[in-house]
Amino acid sequence: MAQEHFDRLTALDASFLEQEGPTSHMHVGAVAMFENPVPDFDQFLDTIRGRLHLVPRYRQKLALPPMRTGRPVWVDDPSFNIEYHVRRTALPPPGSEEQLLLLTSRLFSQQLDRSKPLWEMWIIEGLEDDRWALINKTHHAMIDGVSGVDLATVIFDLSPEGTVVEHPAEPWTPAPEPGDTDLLASGALGIARAAIDSVKTVTKMVSSPAAVFDGLRDGIEGVGEVAWAGINAAPATPLNVEIGPHRRFRVVQAELADFKQIKNALGGTVNDAVLTVVSGALRTWLQSRGVRTEGLELRALVPVSIRPKEAHHEFGNQIAAMRGPLPVYIDDPITRLGMVRKSMDGLKESKQALGAEVISGAQNFAPPTLLAQASRLNFSTRLFNLIVTNVPGPQFPLYVGGSRLLAIAPVAFLPRNHALAIAIMSYDGGLSFGLLGDYDQMADLDVLADALQDSIDELLALSAEAAATA
Amino acid sequence: MAQEHFDRLTALDASFLEQEGPTSHMHVGAVAMFENPVPDFDQFLDTIRGRLHLVPRYRQKLALPPMRTGRPVWVDDPSFNIEYHVRRTALPPPGSEEQLLLLTSRLFSQQLDRSKPLWEMWIIEGLEDDRWALINKTHHAMIDGVSGVDLATVIFDLSPEGTVVEHPAEPWTPAPEPGDTDLLASGALGIARAAIDSVKTVTKMVSSPAAVFDGLRDGIEGVGEVAWAGINAAPATPLNVEIGPHRRFRVVQAELADFKQIKNALGGTVNDAVLTVVSGALRTWLQSRGVRTEGLELRALVPVSIRPKEAHHEFGNQIAAMRGPLPVYIDDPITRLGMVRKSMDGLKESKQALGAEVISGAQNFAPPTLLAQASRLNFSTRLFNLIVTNVPGPQFPLYVGGSRLLAIAPVAFLPRNHALAIAIMSYDGGLSFGLLGDYDQMADLDVLADALQDSIDELLALSAEAAATA
Repeated sequence: MAQEHFDRLTALDASFLEQEGPTSHMHVGAVAMFENPVPDFDQFLDTIRGRLHLVPRYRQKLALPPMRTGRPVWVDDPSFNIEYHVRRTALPPPGSEEQLLLLTSRLFSQQLDRSKPLWEMWIIEGLEDDRWALINKTHHAMIDGVSGVDLATVIFDLSPEGTVVEHPAEPWTPAPEPGDTDLLASGALGIARAAIDSVKTVTKMVSSPAAVFDGLRDGIEGVGEVAWAGINAAPATPLNVEIGPHRRFRVVQAELADFKQIKNALGGTVNDAVLTVVSGALRTWLQSRGVRTEGLELRALVPVSIRPKEAHHEFGNQIAAMRGPLPVYIDDPITRLGMVRKSMDGLKESKQALGAEVISGAQNFAPPTLLAQASRLNFSTRLFNLIVTNVPGPQFPLYVGGSRLLAIAPVAFLPRNHALAIAIMSYDGGLSFGLLGDYDQMADLDVLADALQDSIDELLALSAEAAATA
Repeated sequence: MAQEHFDRLTALDASFLEQEGPTSHMHVGAVAMFENPVPDFDQFLDTIRGRLHLVPRYRQKLALPPMRTGRPVWVDDPSFNIEYHVRRTALPPPGSEEQLLLLTSRLFSQQLDRSKPLWEMWIIEGLEDDRWALINKTHHAMIDGVSGVDLATVIFDLSPEGTVVEHPAEPWTPAPEPGDTDLLASGALGIARAAIDSVKTVTKMVSSPAAVFDGLRDGIEGVGEVAWAGINAAPATPLNVEIGPHRRFRVVQAELADFKQIKNALGGTVNDAVLTVVSGALRTWLQSRGVRTEGLELRALVPVSIRPKEAHHEFGNQIAAMRGPLPVYIDDPITRLGMVRKSMDGLKESKQALGAEVISGAQNFAPPTLLAQASRLNFSTRLFNLIVTNVPGPQFPLYVGGSRLLAIAPVAFLPRNHALAIAIMSYDGGLSFGLLGDYDQMADLDVLADALQDSIDELLALSAEAAATA
């Protein structure tokens, strides 16, 4: 089985724990809206109980080796109680989407308890227009955007009739909790393994020197790019200020077909169009704050999955960070799209993504005490202004307990000194922008959401014109 | 005005901050049930807005002097936003009291944000039988059980028609936030003031030596009693184990008249009867866990207000801790009541309460770094097994927004290594027992709640017999 008792966290997974502070929560998730009827809660619990063996990590908690001798390991939680993790609540009348987003922001303002498996799932009743909602919240150490799609298989069905899940004959029994001696030994083992990996690289270099040298050189060049980005700091903006623990959340709902029309009529990729409208929205919002946008280009951190496709059912993060350009200085949407497109093409040819991977790989040898400092490099304010992450979702309807999923919006996270993050997800023809802001620093998140809607409408209208005259 | 910008926390108030850890939350509050209709939320916000000037602390946050040179001070919060503090939610159907208590326990599992005024108030809709609920949550540093009644005047009315509150002509404007220099100066000032107080005592001793000597001698004797209690540790029980951040909450609703009948028929005070039924409940619960109760007497920490009655409108804690006997070894309820009564009479004559006050007074001179250690004495596991606090409430109906308050149950707090706390409050003829337990360590809190109900019924039946044969 891919996830086992006593698995050690990868360096990147552990870095999400190290980066978490009192105000920088490292959980992520989504808010999903379904058509009624809402599933019976006890039946819903039974459904999850019947599928948890497919994702053993959901019944595991962190165990920390004493004296920080190694990264944490996942161990079975002997006091696992599904009713702690799966919760039920309701919206007061009228049950508007605005009220649902307020609830979402409150739930994401509270950190997960590290002494328990790192997830929560909430069923929300009373959503207007005959709907209900599901909010899930999972620690980033356990999940990334791509494996998130895999985790959803635990509860999402491909048809209203549901899926029969084969279940092991034996009921789940937690492995005994490790003592300090076990954990200390496992810490030493972690260090030993990293040493063995280094030996393996040397061995490989001897037997196939050219291949190893190429890999090494690419890695070094990549590190160079990231280091350069670090020196060449991102511009100071109202986005990069001290934040509190509380959040605001807004959703802008768009159509994937509209973004495909933009791409077809004006060139570039869907992702280029996404960065273009985000740039336009940030431009309007900054100007509403009285910030001058002349010559200002913001930098987005765009997480990129570098995991091989076959590994979808194995957990853990294999993501790299790319720097996405946000040319807020350009008023004209088509010129702005052209600039984004040109920059992104250039970046793909550079070694940025590989560099981030190499940094992550190097952490495999660093004890957690060093890691706590080193891993911060990835999320340093100096490197980027905000996270913009675009997660592809399924383009066919999904169901939970027979109810059809109508729309789903992803919720990202705010690293220290980052007041805004934007996560985008496509599902069944829709494209949802989830805007997560600090409660006090982004009190005007509505202004940004409205500006994003305007920016999408504007680019779409121009693409329709271009298509008509083509 | 009693509460001002830049007020320094008292030593005891600051100790509640120092004692708070990731799993030992120091907020307290209540859950109150009202008859419908639920107030319009915007009108409710307006009502609170119109009365906040009566309790300025509600718009103030903590400011910490740099380098811990003094205790924190209260300062106006320039980003005060009432919609952050006052929140609205609903119960899913059927809206049972059990669901309300589950929501209460979840809200009390989350700490207040120290960068904001230390309170939350939740309006809960959808409670069955045509009712709604109000949950309030306030940091103990800002409030004690007795001043809690005063704070409620902000929203509670004496009649359904409500109360006209006189309002200052000028709207509230926060005082500017202090810089580090101001706070450093204020820290030094705090130390200087304590020195001046010592000088004053000396001066007073010279002019009236006998009176000062009496006060001093009583104080010293009191310290002796508490120190003795510290050496003579409370017994080890399943109540005093490591706890997590999560809570369970149960309410047992009784009638004040029943406890008066017990008192009249069997002797003692209402408080003696309360400790007797709590002892009986703990006895049954311990036995259900397989713990032997022979010869076992648990110790309750019973907070006692030592504030003069005239000071009700000035904030801050002036409470002392008394040790309440819980003779769980006695099966017979009348014998158990007799033993509680005898012990309580003896304790009142001893200097325990005064001793705690003297300890608190001595802290006025200790810098916070020392205080953090010293204040823990009061809540040391070795001194007591659980908090049992009995707060007298008004014996006439109260209203909020025209809706009558039907019942109110207080929520206490769990210090480190204390898995259970019981808060009792009387209101309009009712007597509510609020049982707060750690989520994992008190997974069987229902057993204790049932045992408490049985223990009350048993003692009441015996008092009826005694009254009939008298």
